Parts: sequence; C-alpha cells; structure tokens
Amino acid sequence: MNLLKKYNIKTPKSKTFKISEKLSFDTFPCVLKINKNIHKSDVGGVITSINSNEELNRAKEIILENLKKHNIKINEDDKFLIQEEVKGIELFIGGVFDNVFEEVLVFGKGGVLVEIEKDITYIDVNSDKEEIKKAIALTKISKIFPEFRGKKYDLDLVVKEIQKFQNLFKNEDIKEFDINPLIYTEKGLVAVDVRIKENKPPKKEFIKKTHSLFNNKKVAILGATDKKDKVGYAIAKNAMTSKAEIFFVNPKLSTLFGKKVYKLDELLEVDTAVIAIPPKFVLESIEYLAKKGCKNFIIISAGFKESGNIEKEEKIKKLAKEYNLNIVGPNCLGIYNSKLDLNLTFAKSPIKKGSLALISQSGAVLTALMDKAALKVGFSHIISMGNMADFNFANALQELNNQPSCKEISIYIEGLQYGKAYLKAIRNSSKPIFIYKAGRSEEAKKAAFSHTGNLAGNYEMIITLSKIAGAHIKDSIETLIFAPKYKNVKEVVIVTNAGGPGTILTDLVTKHKKLKKLDKEILEKLNQVLPSTWSKNNPVDIIGDATSTRYKAALDILAPISELIFVIVTPQFMTDEENIAKVLKKYKNVIPIFLGEYSFSGIDLEYFSSLEEAVKIL
Amino acid sequence: MNLLKKYNIKTPKSKTFKISEKLSFDTFPCVLKINKNIHKSDVGGVITSINSNEELNRAKEIILENLKKHNIKINEDDKFLIQEEVKGIELFIGGVFDNVFEEVLVFGKGGVLVEIEKDITYIDVNSDKEEIKKAIALTKISKIFPEFRGKKYDLDLVVKEIQKFQNLFKNEDIKEFDINPLIYTEKGLVAVDVRIKENKPPKKEFIKKTHSLFNNKKVAILGATDKKDKVGYAIAKNAMTSKAEIFFVNPKLSTLFGKKVYKLDELLEVDTAVIAIPPKFVLESIEYLAKKGCKNFIIISAGFKESGNIEKEEKIKKLAKEYNLNIVGPNCLGIYNSKLDLNLTFAKSPIKKGSLALISQSGAVLTALMDKAALKVGFSHIISMGNMADFNFANALQELNNQPSCKEISIYIEGLQYGKAYLKAIRNSSKPIFIYKAGRSEEAKKAAFSHTGNLAGNYEMIITLSKIAGAHIKDSIETLIFAPKYKNVKEVVIVTNAGGPGTILTDLVTKHKKLKKLDKEILEKLNQVLPSTWSKNNPVDIIGDATSTRYKAALDILAPISELIFVIVTPQFMTDEENIAKVLKKYKNVIPIFLGEYSFSGIDLEYFSSLEEAVKIL
Repeated sequence: MNLLKKYNIKTPKSKTFKISEKLSFDTFPCVLKINKNIHKSDVGGVITSINSNEELNRAKEIILENLKKHNIKINEDDKFLIQEEVKGIELFIGGVFDNVFEEVLVFGKGGVLVEIEKDITYIDVNSDKEEIKKAIALTKISKIFPEFRGKKYDLDLVVKEIQKFQNLFKNEDIKEFDINPLIYTEKGLVAVDVRIKENKPPKKEFIKKTHSLFNNKKVAILGATDKKDKVGYAIAKNAMTSKAEIFFVNPKLSTLFGKKVYKLDELLEVDTAVIAIPPKFVLESIEYLAKKGCKNFIIISAGFKESGNIEKEEKIKKLAKEYNLNIVGPNCLGIYNSKLDLNLTFAKSPIKKGSLALISQSGAVLTALMDKAALKVGFSHIISMGNMADFNFANALQELNNQPSCKEISIYIEGLQYGKAYLKAIRNSSKPIFIYKAGRSEEAKKAAFSHTGNLAGNYEMIITLSKIAGAHIKDSIETLIFAPKYKNVKEVVIVTNAGGPGTILTDLVTKHKKLKKLDKEILEKLNQVLPSTWSKNNPVDIIGDATSTRYKAALDILAPISELIFVIVTPQFMTDEENIAKVLKKYKNVIPIFLGEYSFSGIDLEYFSSLEEAVKIL
Repeated sequence: MNLLKKYNIKTPKSKTFKISEKLSFDTFPCVLKINKNIHKSDVGGVITSINSNEELNRAKEIILENLKKHNIKINEDDKFLIQEEVKGIELFIGGVFDNVFEEVLVFGKGGVLVEIEKDITYIDVNSDKEEIKKAIALTKISKIFPEFRGKKYDLDLVVKEIQKFQNLFKNEDIKEFDINPLIYTEKGLVAVDVRIKENKPPKKEFIKKTHSLFNNKKVAILGATDKKDKVGYAIAKNAMTSKAEIFFVNPKLSTLFGKKVYKLDELLEVDTAVIAIPPKFVLESIEYLAKKGCKNFIIISAGFKESGNIEKEEKIKKLAKEYNLNIVGPNCLGIYNSKLDLNLTFAKSPIKKGSLALISQSGAVLTALMDKAALKVGFSHIISMGNMADFNFANALQELNNQPSCKEISIYIEGLQYGKAYLKAIRNSSKPIFIYKAGRSEEAKKAAFSHTGNLAGNYEMIITLSKIAGAHIKDSIETLIFAPKYKNVKEVVIVTNAGGPGTILTDLVTKHKKLKKLDKEILEKLNQVLPSTWSKNNPVDIIGDATSTRYKAALDILAPISELIFVIVTPQFMTDEENIAKVLKKYKNVIPIFLGEYSFSGIDLEYFSSLEEAVKIL
C-alpha cells in the first residue's frame, strides 16, 4: 500500500483490528472483511454498507458465525479489515511481466466475474496518452465514456490514473500485480483489493544496430556452386545480375558462370557475406570475415536451434555482439535489396522492383508470397528472418525506416523477441506497417512450436500491442502483399449485377473501408444510363440483365470519382462475360470479381473468383 | 407480479409504504428503494444491506436527502419499496416480440452494465431443454456452470426456470418484458426488478403445404419462346431433356424445338406451371390453371414487390391460399428436380445430379453457386425463392424433408418470414442444414433492403436461433455447396512442406474440425520415410526440401488412415510441383493447396491457391 501511495494511487481509508478487539471507524458507509486468503465474499466474510460503529460490531459477530458455518477456522494472526466503502463501476488493472514484452498492464472491467468476462486490453508501460486511449477503446467497458446512464465518466482522468500504474510497474521491483476492483469515482480510481508480487525477472538486452544491413556493395557468396540441386547455386545465379560486386567463394571450384571463384583466404574486404555452407564451418567463416571488416552476414545454412543445436546459435549471437555485426538467420531464405538489384535469396520466382519491404519469419510463407507477387507487386527490400539468432524484427523495422525506397512494410510473424524494442520501432516508423501473426488457436501454437523452436507467444497480446502502437493487423498472408497498394484508399464503390453478392461484399468491405456515399449529381447521371430498378445507392446494383454496355455506362460515370471500385459479375442470363472483361480492362481502379467458374473459362483478364479473396487487397 | 406468481416465478418478499408512513419489515437484510421511474441507484435512491427496522427508517431519511440533492421531487403517489435482499450472480431475462420470430427470450448476464456487456443469447419460446442448454452455452456467463469460485451453479435448475418464462411469454398477452437482475440462488432464480409491457401484436398465419412442389409429371411453360434473348427460351431449352412431359405455352407460336406450342386454353391438366410472361398476365394465368387443377407454380416474371407493386404480390399470396397452391417466386430463377432430370431454371451452367438441395433467396448467388458447382457438386433439388410471396423457407424445408434423394440442404438467406415455422422445420429436419445469412453489418442491411424489398432481419437473432435449432452456420457462400460433402469428416490431417502455412491452416481448420492425433505406429512409419527434422506431429511438416517422392511416401502412410488430408505445397527450392501434382491426383481424400502462382502455371490438377479458400470445404 505504501508503494501505491508513492505513486499517488488512491486507496480507501482503512484500519485493521485483531479478532478480539472492539471495532471502531470514522468514515461511513464502510465495509468489514475478514482478512484471510479465502474467497471472502463467497463464505459471508464481507459485509457492506455499514453505517455506524454499533452496526460494525454486529457485522463482526455475523461474519464470525458465517465462517463457523463454512468450517473456516480463525486463529490469532487473522485480522478484521474495515474499509471506507467506495461505490462506482468496478474496473480492473493488473501488471504481468511477459516473456516478450516485459512489463505490460492489463486493464478492463473488474469485479468477481473478471475471469469469465475477460473484457480486458493490454497497455504497454511505455504507451503514451493516445495509445492508452486506443487501448481502452478496445474494451466493452469503455462505452461508459463520456456518459452512461446519465452519469459522466471522464476518460482523461482514467488515462492519467493508468499512467500512475505505468510508472509504478516500470520503476518498482514488481513481477506482477492485480487490483480488483479498481473503482471509478469522480476524483479518480480507487484501488480496493491489491495483490502485488515482487522480484522482477531479468530483462534481455536489445542491441541496436549501427550499420545498415543494406550496404551491399561487395558481396561474398560462401557456398556458391555449380551443382544445380544446391541452394548455393540458386543464390549465385540470382545474385549474378546485381549492380553490386559479387564474389563467389568455394574452395573446390575455380570458375562459376564465367567468373572467378575465390578461396576464403584470397578474399579482399567485403561488406556482406551470404553463408550457404555446411553448418560446421559457419561460425569460423563469420569470425574470419568479421575480422577483415565484413559487417553483414546472411546465414542460409540450417542446423542450428531448429535442429536442437542451441549452443551453436548462441555463439552466433555472441559473434554479432563482439564484432558489431548484422547477422540474418540462420536457416533463412536470404535478402533482397532493390537499390542494387541484389537478389541474395534462393527463391525461384523473379522479383519486381517497387516500394514494399517484406519481412518474414517463415521462408515458406515468403516464397509463397514472392510467387504470388511475381511481376505484380514490387519490392524495395525482402528479409527472410530465419531463426533470428541476432537480427530481429525491431532491427529490421529500424533499418527499413532509414531506407527511402521503402514506402510500406509488411511482416509475417510467428514468435517475437524484444517486445519493447519492437513496439518502439513500430511507434517510430514513418511508414505504414502491415502485420500477419500466425498461431491464434492452441493447436496452431503447438504446430508453430514444433517447427520454429520458438514459442509463438500470446496471440492476443502481440496483436493488441502491435495495433495500439500503430500497426495494421491483417487476417491473411496475401493481404501482406496486396493491401499496401491500397493503403490510402478510404472509400470504396461496389458495382454489381446482383444484389445478394453486393450485400455480402458490403459486409466484407466495411470491415476495412467505408462505402463511398454517392452524391446527387452522380445519382442523376446514373439514373440516365441505368434501368429504373437500379439500387440508387452504393452498392450500385445495375440489375441482373446488365451487359457490357451497361457496365461501361456505369463505370464511365463512377471511375473518375472513385478511389477503388469492386465490380461483381455473376453469370446471369444476359451476361456477356467476355465483353464485360474487355470493358473492365480499361479502368485502372477496377477490381474485377467474376463469381462463378463454368461460364468464365474464356475470360482474358485477371480476376478474383470469390468475394473473400477480393477483399484481401484491403 | 401476479403474472409471475401464476408461473411459479420467485420474487423477493416485499412491502410498499407511503412516503409518510413509518417503515417496518420482517426479513433482513433488506433493500429500501424509492418506487419512482428513475435510474434509482444513480441518484442514491437505493440502500442495501439493511439489518433492522431502526436502520430502515434511517435509510429512508438518507434517500429523501439524496433525492433532494438531485432535485428529484417527491409527491404523494410515490412510494417506498422494501425488498428482501437477494444476493448472488445477477442474470438477465427478457422477452421481445420479433417481427420474424414472434416471442423470443433474451437471456444472459444481468446488472446495470447489461447494455454495454451484451452477454446475451436468444431462446425461442418453443425450445426444449436441450436447445435452452445450447443457447445458454453461447454466453460467457455460462462459464459459472457447474462451479465457479468454489460455489456450485446448477444448469438444470436454470433451464427449468427459463421454461417458466417460456410459458409465461407464450401464454400471456405480453408484448415484451425484462427482468434485471434475475438473481441466481440455490433455490432458483429470483426476479428482482420486473418490467412488463402488455398487448401482444397479431401473428402472421403460416400455411403448411399439403401438395409436394416436386410432383412435376406434366409441366407447362408459359412464355416458352424461340427468342434467344428471353428467359422463356432458356427455360424451355433446359426443360427439353426432362423425363417429365413438357408443354410449351405461347399464344404467338405454333412449334418450338420441334414440339407443339399450346395456347393456354388448349392445355389439358398439368401439375406444374412455370410462368415467364409479362407481369400483367401472371395472376389471371395462375387462376385459370389453378381452376383446372394445377398445383405448383414457379413465377419467373418480375414486376411485383421488388418494383413496388405490393398489392399485386399480396394477390399471389391470396391465390395460393384460396386454391391450396405452391407458388414459388415471383422474380425467381426457377427450380430443379433431379428425379425427373427436370431443369426449370434459366441458368446457363449444367446441373449435375446428386444429393444436395440448394435453396437461395438470391437468384444471382444461386447462378454463381451453380456455376461453381457445375460438374463437381451434384444436386437433388434447387429452389430459387425469389420474393417469397407464398412458398417460403419453412415450406421448402418441410418439402425437402420428404424427398429421399435429398441428403443435405443448403440455404442462402437474406431475410426471413414465419420464424416459428422455420425453426420448427429445422428442428424436424432429418437432414443436415447449412445456412449462409447475408447482411451482418448495418451497411449490408441497407444494401439488402434496397435490392429485395425485404428487411434483412436481426442478423444475430437469426444466426443464433438457427444454430440452436440445429442448423450449421457457414461463413461463405461457397461453403454451401462444398461443405455438405465433408459433413461427416471429424478429423483432418495436414501434410505440408513448410511449417508457417501449416500453422495458419491449423488455425483455420480447427474452427470447424479437429486435427487427427497420429498414433505411435503411424509416427514410427513416418519416421522411416521422413527426415529426422519432420514435425513428429499433425500438421505433418515433411520439410522444405520435400519432393514428390517424399509427398508420396507420407501420403501412402497417411491416406489409408485419414478421413481428409489437406496437402500444402509451397514453391521451395527443391519442390517439383508438377510431379507432386501427379502424385496428389492419386489420393481420393487429398485436398491440394498450391500456395503460390508464378511457379504453378504448369500444374495439371485442380487445387486451391489460398488457405482460406481451401477451408471453405469444411
């Protein structure tokens, strides 16, 4: 309680008495409780609304009788606690020391049903006022602000009170605490029942990188080979067309693709090394090159933590710290740097240059996304994170924030480390960040654990804290590559030849964006080209007998005033799908959805065939 | 309160007093309340935990002072209410008379925050014990059963109490009521605060059909034509290959497809008539044929409620009642009856014979699904519901329950009528029913309203009551055609060459089905054909360097013991996708997912390219 006072956290006026003492108090109404580690209220151990000292002593007798009935023994150490009765809506605040995020507050609705209701949110102890407000808004209980049942509830007051708990948890040697109820009063929050566990666990040291990972003028590829079934072959081949200077390294080879192949000790200074050699040679090679000034390492080789070799992986971390290196991986797919057209991955699909930086903890998800993106979505940078022995998400976000060619960042996450640095990097990012986090269900967590050797982490906490810090949380991996393109779209138009699918798409779209309200002038124009039964609204239902002519007429009016138009085509009786496809091709801001299969085999246009797939671009 | 007593619903012992009277009561603790229509507890109008008559009169003074402070005037009609204090978890029960479902109970957590928490479920007044239990299980507060914080909570007791409220609401002239709190005690639920509104609105009469819609031996097609741009042409053409006797009717034509075309008055008795003629002739044609004994009408013609002609639509309803008819539509796509190979729709895609009955309120969703299903999914019956002037979902479900060739039923719903009959039909169905309901968001409801002229109805209520009555609620339209095939699958196996996508798919699959636990023997067998780093678990991660040989080895072990296997292929360095496709083709219970695009252009196999699309079959 002294700790709470230090941070100016209100507690009810209270007094404790020995079991035998006569009770007296000076603030009414008050509450009498037996001070014993039991569910007091469930055994008649609490009496509320006591209005006088006479009642107080009568209440004491009743409690003692109740305890006797429940066979609860009273001994000399037990005490009675009298507390000023504080009435109001019951909130909850707690603190947990999370493996990943360290000190995190849990805030929400309080009361005895807290475990059942789980109306809670997470708040980082470093969150500012705005973040705290965003966090509170995620709870149902936040609907009491600014007024509920005729009574005012002051959000700013609650935010200020939460800041006290942030300071308490940040500065004191507390491992966890919970306060339930934390009662809302006009003068602030009053902590009624307080439980504190001391002894904060040690924190992991996060090391900020001082060299850019994307300084790749001179690149050594260790393990470059002419054997086509080796990843060293694919990387060498992918790297060949780069503007960077590439040095192949392989003791058993003299030339590759017409270029000299070096032995490691022949190599002059390089800034970047890709390591695709047997795991037993990895550590010594890194140390050798680090001593010669190489700063960036991408370890493709597997055989570390994921195979149970935890010590070997620890040594990578040590090397990075000792020589001040960026070490990506091990067990990764490589990196891509658009500035130098430098593809240091062994992916098979081509990479188009663009503005999206893609970071992935799964090499397979990365190849799948690169394969889906090929020739369609352009990348500025790609980082396959692998086991993250050294270079982690926070490092990657800091790095990309300094890369002007990167305009958006997408991240596929399985498990996190260094949560505090990660949140800080999200907060500081000048670029929008899109996140997909795998491993929501218990079963999925088990699956993730078996394949990465990382615990997937508390899904809800990662999602909530990332969102509050400013990231966009996405619900499919495809969204990571397609949504950045449409990030600035605010309002969407739907054109359809059928009401039902228009209704369903409305449901799906409005989870992410607004439907554009069509103004009078546009409605008038549409009236002139559409049949009288058209919907007179967005979704623009141009009626089942629409042919390509009507699609064109509607789109000629809508395309110039719309950011993005989803056009639904269902195979109705009059539908001339092939002509419609020709029409749709002409509009840059049209996303075609042909809802069917049999009738659409002859269509020469890229389209979505399901509504759910189409909204993945949002 | 007398009403409650009649149904044996407990209320606290209570007594009312005039403002001027001296208070006295005989059961303590008790509560004193000012009996005024205000938020009493917010203005100090309630005092709890009163233990004696002396305290009672002191409490009265305090309340009067509190009211004065809040400027609330007391007059002679106001009274004080003393109530026995009942303590326990606060529940809520209410009744609403819904437009669609008529008397429906709302049950859940009670207390002052009920509007904020919305931890409620819907219970039909006709639901039996099992349904009530299913409904309660949908609330968070249900987690108190059977025990919470060391105290027992008896679910059967609560079910019995809810049955009392079902009877109350069913039998009495009540429009709505709510009881908050309804307090759980060991002896039953005690209704503390009760509000009842009388005067039940009139109910709509549901008419059960006595003739089968699918008696279609002799079918007249009114509006059959040789003009290819008319739906009458498409229907006539689709109907031609049927085993039923088909009569084309058109006053302006003598032959069509080499068959005689009749004038309406030349027609001998038929059992079924498809109406694809201008709307002004529809009503008279139906009446003419009904008089001659025709029982089933499918009105393709539009121009009724959806165009604002509500009276005309009412007349259809009247005709159906007067002549005891089944009238499907108007404004529909038609019906299909597999027994007679009878396609009375104007859909363009072919229909495969099978066991699924598909009912759709949207013609466009129906054509889209038929197009996606063509040659893949077989149908026993199809009904395009159109405006549902007469033949409605409840009629359709009753009808299909009597059709032996129908083994599963899928329904696309926008808005409902006759909710009680609909729920009864779901309960009585011997076949599994899959439902997709459009119009969840406010925006979507608006869209649905504009296109069908039907209010989409309370989404949550429709979904909850349908689920509790026994239907399977699905979240995409495609699921309606694909999921019935896999309805009996209980456990799923995932085989993947990448952990990440395996984790994501686990998340998606476990929403619907369980992951199969692999037994020791199978794990042993897999150990012998897979590399040592495989996941040793389901998802079976066969590691990124897997080629077709390894896929085959794993599937040869897993296919014989699995109901359904999702196989994920990501484009890794060693992946021989075309050979893998050849391997996958050989297993009947494998669903292939090729996660990518660029690398998979040469694949000769139908596959899903996203995880979300793949799980639509569940």
